[in-house]
Amino acid sequence: MTANQSMSQVPLTLEGSWVLHQMFRLRWAEWRALSASDRQDIAAEAAVLIGGDQAARQQSAVFQILGHKGDLMFIHFCKSFEQLHAVEHQLEATRLHTYLEPASSYVSVIELGLYDSSVKLYRELNEKGTAPHTPEWNAAIEETLKRQREAMQSRLFPEIPNHKHVCFYPMDRKRGEHKNWYTLPIEERQRQMEEHGLVGRRYAGKVRQIITGSIGFDDWEWGVDLFSDDPLVFKKLIYEMRFDQVSAEYALFGSFYVGSRMMADEVSGFLGASK
Amino acid sequence: MTANQSMSQVPLTLEGSWVLHQMFRLRWAEWRALSASDRQDIAAEAAVLIGGDQAARQQSAVFQILGHKGDLMFIHFCKSFEQLHAVEHQLEATRLHTYLEPASSYVSVIELGLYDSSVKLYRELNEKGTAPHTPEWNAAIEETLKRQREAMQSRLFPEIPNHKHVCFYPMDRKRGEHKNWYTLPIEERQRQMEEHGLVGRRYAGKVRQIITGSIGFDDWEWGVDLFSDDPLVFKKLIYEMRFDQVSAEYALFGSFYVGSRMMADEVSGFLGASK
Amino acid sequence: MTANQSMSQVPLTLEGSWVLHQMFRLRWAEWRALSASDRQDIAAEAAVLIGGDQAARQQSAVFQILGHKGDLMFIHFCKSFEQLHAVEHQLEATRLHTYLEPASSYVSVIELGLYDSSVKLYRELNEKGTAPHTPEWNAAIEETLKRQREAMQSRLFPEIPNHKHVCFYPMDRKRGEHKNWYTLPIEERQRQMEEHGLVGRRYAGKVRQIITGSIGFDDWEWGVDLFSDDPLVFKKLIYEMRFDQVSAEYALFGSFYVGSRMMADEVSGFLGASK
Amino acid sequence: MTANQSMSQVPLTLEGSWVLHQMFRLRWAEWRALSASDRQDIAAEAAVLIGGDQAARQQSAVFQILGHKGDLMFIHFCKSFEQLHAVEHQLEATRLHTYLEPASSYVSVIELGLYDSSVKLYRELNEKGTAPHTPEWNAAIEETLKRQREAMQSRLFPEIPNHKHVCFYPMDRKRGEHKNWYTLPIEERQRQMEEHGLVGRRYAGKVRQIITGSIGFDDWEWGVDLFSDDPLVFKKLIYEMRFDQVSAEYALFGSFYVGSRMMADEVSGFLGASK
Amino acid sequence: MTANQSMSQVPLTLEGSWVLHQMFRLRWAEWRALSASDRQDIAAEAAVLIGGDQAARQQSAVFQILGHKGDLMFIHFCKSFEQLHAVEHQLEATRLHTYLEPASSYVSVIELGLYDSSVKLYRELNEKGTAPHTPEWNAAIEETLKRQREAMQSRLFPEIPNHKHVCFYPMDRKRGEHKNWYTLPIEERQRQMEEHGLVGRRYAGKVRQIITGSIGFDDWEWGVDLFSDDPLVFKKLIYEMRFDQVSAEYALFGSFYVGSRMMADEVSGFLGASK
Repeated sequence: MTANQSMSQVPLTLEGSWVLHQMFRLRWAEWRALSASDRQDIAAEAAVLIGGDQAARQQSAVFQILGHKGDLMFIHFCKSFEQLHAVEHQLEATRLHTYLEPASSYVSVIELGLYDSSVKLYRELNEKGTAPHTPEWNAAIEETLKRQREAMQSRLFPEIPNHKHVCFYPMDRKRGEHKNWYTLPIEERQRQMEEHGLVGRRYAGKVRQIITGSIGFDDWEWGVDLFSDDPLVFKKLIYEMRFDQVSAEYALFGSFYVGSRMMADEVSGFLGASK
Repeated sequence: MTANQSMSQVPLTLEGSWVLHQMFRLRWAEWRALSASDRQDIAAEAAVLIGGDQAARQQSAVFQILGHKGDLMFIHFCKSFEQLHAVEHQLEATRLHTYLEPASSYVSVIELGLYDSSVKLYRELNEKGTAPHTPEWNAAIEETLKRQREAMQSRLFPEIPNHKHVCFYPMDRKRGEHKNWYTLPIEERQRQMEEHGLVGRRYAGKVRQIITGSIGFDDWEWGVDLFSDDPLVFKKLIYEMRFDQVSAEYALFGSFYVGSRMMADEVSGFLGASK
Repeated sequence: MTANQSMSQVPLTLEGSWVLHQMFRLRWAEWRALSASDRQDIAAEAAVLIGGDQAARQQSAVFQILGHKGDLMFIHFCKSFEQLHAVEHQLEATRLHTYLEPASSYVSVIELGLYDSSVKLYRELNEKGTAPHTPEWNAAIEETLKRQREAMQSRLFPEIPNHKHVCFYPMDRKRGEHKNWYTLPIEERQRQMEEHGLVGRRYAGKVRQIITGSIGFDDWEWGVDLFSDDPLVFKKLIYEMRFDQVSAEYALFGSFYVGSRMMADEVSGFLGASK
Repeated sequence: MTANQSMSQVPLTLEGSWVLHQMFRLRWAEWRALSASDRQDIAAEAAVLIGGDQAARQQSAVFQILGHKGDLMFIHFCKSFEQLHAVEHQLEATRLHTYLEPASSYVSVIELGLYDSSVKLYRELNEKGTAPHTPEWNAAIEETLKRQREAMQSRLFPEIPNHKHVCFYPMDRKRGEHKNWYTLPIEERQRQMEEHGLVGRRYAGKVRQIITGSIGFDDWEWGVDLFSDDPLVFKKLIYEMRFDQVSAEYALFGSFYVGSRMMADEVSGFLGASK
Repeated sequence: MTANQSMSQVPLTLEGSWVLHQMFRLRWAEWRALSASDRQDIAAEAAVLIGGDQAARQQSAVFQILGHKGDLMFIHFCKSFEQLHAVEHQLEATRLHTYLEPASSYVSVIELGLYDSSVKLYRELNEKGTAPHTPEWNAAIEETLKRQREAMQSRLFPEIPNHKHVCFYPMDRKRGEHKNWYTLPIEERQRQMEEHGLVGRRYAGKVRQIITGSIGFDDWEWGVDLFSDDPLVFKKLIYEMRFDQVSAEYALFGSFYVGSRMMADEVSGFLGASK
């Protein structure tokens, strides 16, 4: 193990909204067999869910996705894990749900990785001779987390970005026999993440990125949502990043879902309720 | 092979309760087509199974799980392999079963790995010149197992923890071309497992972990259940552990199932019996 | 990282038409249960879509594909991402769609990789001492892209080639632990791509190749369509290319779909409408 | 290639009974919709198949298996390949078959690997200067096979063991880029197989192991059946063996199926015919 | 790249009949629900297809296959790619097709790899100083291909062998990070293929092997059919070959399908038409 053993290797993270992605296929044949007015009523009932519940600090958005991976993708931002169950249950209680076939899903929580603060803090504590996991060490960690959490409220509990298009994919950091992210020293990981961040910063204004952590919740380590009004930007950004060391050598990607937002009043149109 | 050939390389293990995980999707469309009173009767019949059968020393718990991997997960703790069949059969005999579609399952047995005792005992026997698999060696092994089994009764046959949330996943130790857990000397494996255990100990009180062995029973080597009232702890614990050498270099993970416990009286609510 | 850090490593690309591939299985049993006149009407309605919509600069073609991977493959060339949704939706609105089961799909955009121009331009800028991402650098990039985009209009927005047979497959460049395309210096990648192109050029006139980029849109990095009147050429070309360094060492391939074009008036015949 | 080129590298094998494993899920909903007397009749008809056909030297056994991988597993031992087809066809002709959904299967033949005899014989022939594949060499091989075949009749054509529980899994020997079973010299493979056999021998009396070869018949190279009255022994044996060099470095495992035998008169009970 | 750059690395190949494999599951429940006379009529109609169409130089054979991968496998040898579509379409037009569920398929073309002639010719041209792809070089290639094509007519357009049993599997040559078939010099590949061929030759008379190429047509590079009256020979041959360097180090195998031929008059029996 090449890592500097005198320092913690675990980057501090902050967590915000709980997130559920749900991808569904519509059972078109059964749906089309309904009368136009039934379709209209059912679509209207479902549209109520979209936009979420402001009083409960819960947001939902729906996207039509391209290709055979699904017809609809819901993204829910919730204030608690229990609310993820509740929002899933609300959808199950709609009549529309009978016509939806679950195709995929993703459970995660908005995560901010504090590589810079972590390395800085661990170095200071190390220099002061504060041993990991002592009360003094724990207090310093807690104080840093508290300060950052306050500073980053809006990034931890954001609105679902209002852009026209979405790109969602899950990813892992590689643990190969020779290239293993988790055995790199934290300073090296911080350096690579910083380089990676520089690319992202050049796309500020063109794309909004929300990173969610899913270790312990789903089959990949992170879920990434990109939102943009220009879908070409998804390709430009991800392709450029692929040449960063951290992506080139350590990134593994799952399936990509790409689609376009539907506001509540567009759902009926999509579902053909008015035909 | 780098292992110390004069010593057994196989860690001693103790086994306790037999465990069956069952993940099901509910056939919502058919279920919703039932009358409210039918749903109520069927849910009530199924609820009887939950909690298990104290007289038969058999426990069952049910969890609603998030996402498309399933709607319900049953965990059964049984006193024998035959009882696993029996409990599976009891569920098949309920009317609810007609509305359940098997999505996944896991067969395993609660396992305590005795790396510390094994290395200590093998070293002593080695120093005494006792050859492996001689009657003297076998007797010493049996005596150690007997003593540990008595000391660890409550960990071998635990109650299903009473926490609100669960995280289940199966895992393997890697047998790669360069990184191979099974060719490391037992002393090195013991050292890595001890380091791993230190992380776990810092989470005591926040999370309950139950390790089950599944070699010969299912497709992965171990199944891990974490129980906690704070689901964020699942992520914190597993992420921190991922930087341990044993996880970073030698762990392979299967699918993660995350959900929340339902007591018998909550099942009807979840199933919408009262709507 | 062996790459020349003083030069950008990201090749410039140009994008043209948006492309959607849709692979469907026909539900033969239900289809055959229709009367001959119903089948005829439904096939005629669907045939209207084929050929696309000239006014909207949108083209569609349909192919019968061999084997169990599907019965029909649609290829749509669109002028915008939104038009991909629209064309998918038009097909969903046909009566034929009820008899189609989605088997696969692919979302991508026609891409021209400018390895030669990129290396030349980066070298010039480097020699002039122009730093990446400065306004001067950005302007030079934009100027090059603009010039190339104009020169390559017909290749960015081509007609769907009129050949009898098609071969479609997605592919990645390998990011292995030892062989990693994305960590090769751009000059080396340019050299290998040039060698690769020489093989392709020898097949000019026998096969038409259209490369689409799908990073951020689908599960592979590129989608390749080959069109030819002689299907043996697909095998000859791909086999010969497999010995190029860039394919031998760095190419990963997905599923291959092979089939034959049906003009609008052949669709009814294929669908047995006239039987 | 490190193998001793002057010696054949292919171990001699003997083949006995042809074997078919069939894993089925029961369509519970349709099955439960039958009247009790229909279920009883159908179960009784199927039970006739179990136990096989002594006159035709054909044996069949049925097991209830745990978890979602299936409800029933049939194991058929047949005297010929044609009889595998016949027994599969007999099951298809029962009314029970309508309620069975094929989940998996395995085609193989009982195989005894003669590593010890092979190395001994090849060495003798080599010392005598007999070249491989000469008539003299062929005759010596044939003579050895004939002698061993006679000595091992009962192991080549065994009864299906009468134990309560079964564990079935397929496996391969690894052909990795660095660890490749098939390029090891035959003497080294023989040494590792012998070490492996020593572990197995310590479990004699507790477990019965039947190895079947499936190269050319199914997707893995071998299928392994373990039979025991104590299911914990499956885990103990396989875990201990995993530390053998041949398993640690060269074994790849498929899915594990674990279950319990049902005698003909238990089938009706399992199928709920008497409810 | 270790290959001799002054020589072409691409072996010459000849192509013959186009081949389609189709694997189907029979929908037994629906099939059994038909009256005996309906089943007889439907089976008789399908039987007409078997044997193919001599006038059109098209052959078809049908096999019952063992296990859950399918019930029936059709092999079609066709004179053109278009005829593959036609024969697939003829089967879709039968009433039997309604009771068939596509399980798998394979599209390929009979291929003879001319490693020996290629190396010999390339060496001669090289010695004469003839550069690759010059008119002189092309003419020499064409002349060799023409001569070989005539000499090998019967192997390029064979009858479907008349043996009782079949074994089909697809395969690739490995392109690993260290073991890469496509970067070996052509002389080394020729040497390994020759060694491989020697094993095959010892099985002449016991087994008929037909190699088809599928690069550009299906998901693997080659499809292999073995035909024999003794199914044990499949295992013997493939196991022995697995120790050849070319198989041990460079072969990757897909799924194996094994079964037995049914002549036209046996199809009715298999399908239970006469019950």
